[in-house]
Parts: sequence; C-alpha cells; structure tokens
Amino acid sequence: MKIIDQPRAPNPRRVRIFLAEKGITVPFEQVDLAKMEHRSPEFTAMNPLQQVPVLVLDDGTTITESVAICRYFEELHPEPPLFGEDTMSRVMVEMWQRRMEIGLFFPIGAVFRHSHPAMAELEKPQVKEWAEINRPRVLKMLSFLDQELGQRRYIAGDKFTIADITALVAIDFMKPAKIERPAELKNIARWYEEVSSRPSAKA
Amino acid sequence: MKIIDQPRAPNPRRVRIFLAEKGITVPFEQVDLAKMEHRSPEFTAMNPLQQVPVLVLDDGTTITESVAICRYFEELHPEPPLFGEDTMSRVMVEMWQRRMEIGLFFPIGAVFRHSHPAMAELEKPQVKEWAEINRPRVLKMLSFLDQELGQRRYIAGDKFTIADITALVAIDFMKPAKIERPAELKNIARWYEEVSSRPSAKA
Repeated sequence: MKIIDQPRAPNPRRVRIFLAEKGITVPFEQVDLAKMEHRSPEFTAMNPLQQVPVLVLDDGTTITESVAICRYFEELHPEPPLFGEDTMSRVMVEMWQRRMEIGLFFPIGAVFRHSHPAMAELEKPQVKEWAEINRPRVLKMLSFLDQELGQRRYIAGDKFTIADITALVAIDFMKPAKIERPAELKNIARWYEEVSSRPSAKA
Repeated sequence: MKIIDQPRAPNPRRVRIFLAEKGITVPFEQVDLAKMEHRSPEFTAMNPLQQVPVLVLDDGTTITESVAICRYFEELHPEPPLFGEDTMSRVMVEMWQRRMEIGLFFPIGAVFRHSHPAMAELEKPQVKEWAEINRPRVLKMLSFLDQELGQRRYIAGDKFTIADITALVAIDFMKPAKIERPAELKNIARWYEEVSSRPSAKA
C-alpha cells in the first residue's frame, strides 16, 4: 500500500492529518505538480482525473478523492471515529464536512487557482473575476462558522472530526490564497489555536 | 418531519429520488426561489446558508446538504443500501459520488448559474467566462464516465447507488444549462436509459 502525494497541496494534507489522528503510517510517494508529473501517462493510468492524492492498495486497486481515501481508513481502523460515532453525529459530520468543503475549501481553492501567479501554467485560463467573487464568499462562511463555534467546541459537535480537518486545511490555505482571516472572529481563533496545536496538524 | 423543497432545483431532486428508491414518504413543503422566499428571515433561521433542501425533524432539528439528508435516511432505513454495502463498495460509492459531484454536478450547475438569463437575479454577478470554462469540463468528465460505464452496469459498481442518482440529476440538468450530451457516448446512453426508466426518476 502507498499514497501518491504532494507536500504543499491541500487535499493530500487532509489525508495526512486524518492518518496522523488515527495513528496509521502509510508510505508516501511524491509527484511534482509544477513539473506536470500528474499529467504523465503513468500517473494518468492510475488516476485519469490527474489529481492527488491517490491511494494504491497492494492488489493494485487505486482509490482517489481525499474523503474516499479517509473513509477507507475509517472502515479499517474505526478508532477514533472521525466520521461520527452514531446516527446523528454521522449525519452532522456529513453536513458540516460539506459546508466546510463547498463554503470554504472550494472557494479558497478557487481564489488561489484563479489569482495566484504560480498557478498561471496549471490553471489555464485564470479567471480573475471568479477569484474576486469567491473572496467575499469565504469571509461570509467564516462569519457564519464563527457564530456556530460560539456554541460548541468543534465544528460538527463536541468531538474532533474530519470536518475540523477540512476546515483547518482550508483556513491554512488562505495564506497562499492571500485572504486574511478577520481578527474579530474570536471563536474561530479559539478553535484554530486548539486544532492547529494537535500533533496531527504538522502532518 | 418534513422536507423544504423546490420542485425544479437539482439538489432537492436528489433527495426525492433517494427517498423513492427507499420507499419512504415524507411530507414536502415548497419555497419559491424566484420570489426569494429562501432569503426570508423565517427560512434563514432554518438554514442560514439559504439553500434547499432542508430536512426538519419532529424535535425541530434541521439537517441541510442533500447528501447529509440522504445519509440520515440510509441510517434509519438501511435497505436497499444506496451508499454501498461493504467496505470496498462504500469507499467506491464515496469516490464516484464525489467524482460525479465535482466533475459533473457542480460544473453543470456553474454553466447554468453563470449563463442562463433566468439566473441573472439570483446569481449576481454572472461570470460568463466561468460558464464557458465549465462547459468543456463537463464534456471531458462525460467522456471519462462513458469509458467507465463500458466496464460495469452502474457508476460505482454492479448495484444502483447514490452516485447514479447524482449523475442522473446532473445529466438531466444539462438541458436547462443548454449543454448537449454527445450522441457517441453509447455507454452513458445505455446507462441513462436504464436509470431514467426506474420509477424513482419521476420523483
């Protein structure tokens, strides 16, 4: 088993943090996106969508999509549960995971991909207007999240889950996307300090 | 229990088809998006993100995000399983569900929202360039899906799952988005005929 990975991209980091929380070690192999290695025939044979991360099982089966890879490890190593532990918590994790992806992770990615000069080659054409539309959406979602985090410890409830991982990776990715986190969002600041000081955050 | 719904929007249809496949009846209540009813204070109190569908439980708990609503019903009524029935099928459903969302459902939605005159009021500003970039992405994903459907009956394996529901709703939504499905994609045509003739497709 191995995971094809890229150290700076946000999606592979979600999987690395997830594995660190579970205490699972998997060998990693790197592709260099800047050198377009993810568009090589070898990589494309593994993942026709030309994205990282990719989990390659011993029998050659490939699993792509970060959350599908995480779900595979949740099935194999249920403890600690990061997708919820009973019906309502699993549903709340699904809801918040999606809110964090659709409202935060994807728009922050859109700002980065469509405005950062380093993406000019990979994201053709960059649509500056699309980046600018996503900036206020990120801030609006952060403001909503701040209110919610005034009511509980973690994003989907009183336990740390994959929704916290997605939000942490998204918020850290605001730095390369050049979006500043508003200082007045005190509940996010409290939550951020807690989750980013977990050992898994270094993964 | 009730579901707040909108008859023409694609996300609520995913939930309606899912419920029909399970044989579950839930009362539906409509909001009129054209009249901006989803931005009213009453609706916003239920879902601060101002989106449909919303599942309201008898104790007042609200669940949003279509896939989280579907997961709630999967937990309560596991038969027939629509998220997979063992580890590998659950992982494959997660992977294909995401491929169908990120590669098909969302880009088709982007074309519709950013190019259709009927969306001029709801999607401000419309970014025509963003719509045009998503058009070829949809066609590229359809071509990949066609190859895959040459190898198996349904999208995530040999059973009908939520990934088929997402793809069916997305492909039907190509009509308002004014994207034509290429006639040469014979495997998609075979799959489409089969899934759209299930009674649930009328939901």
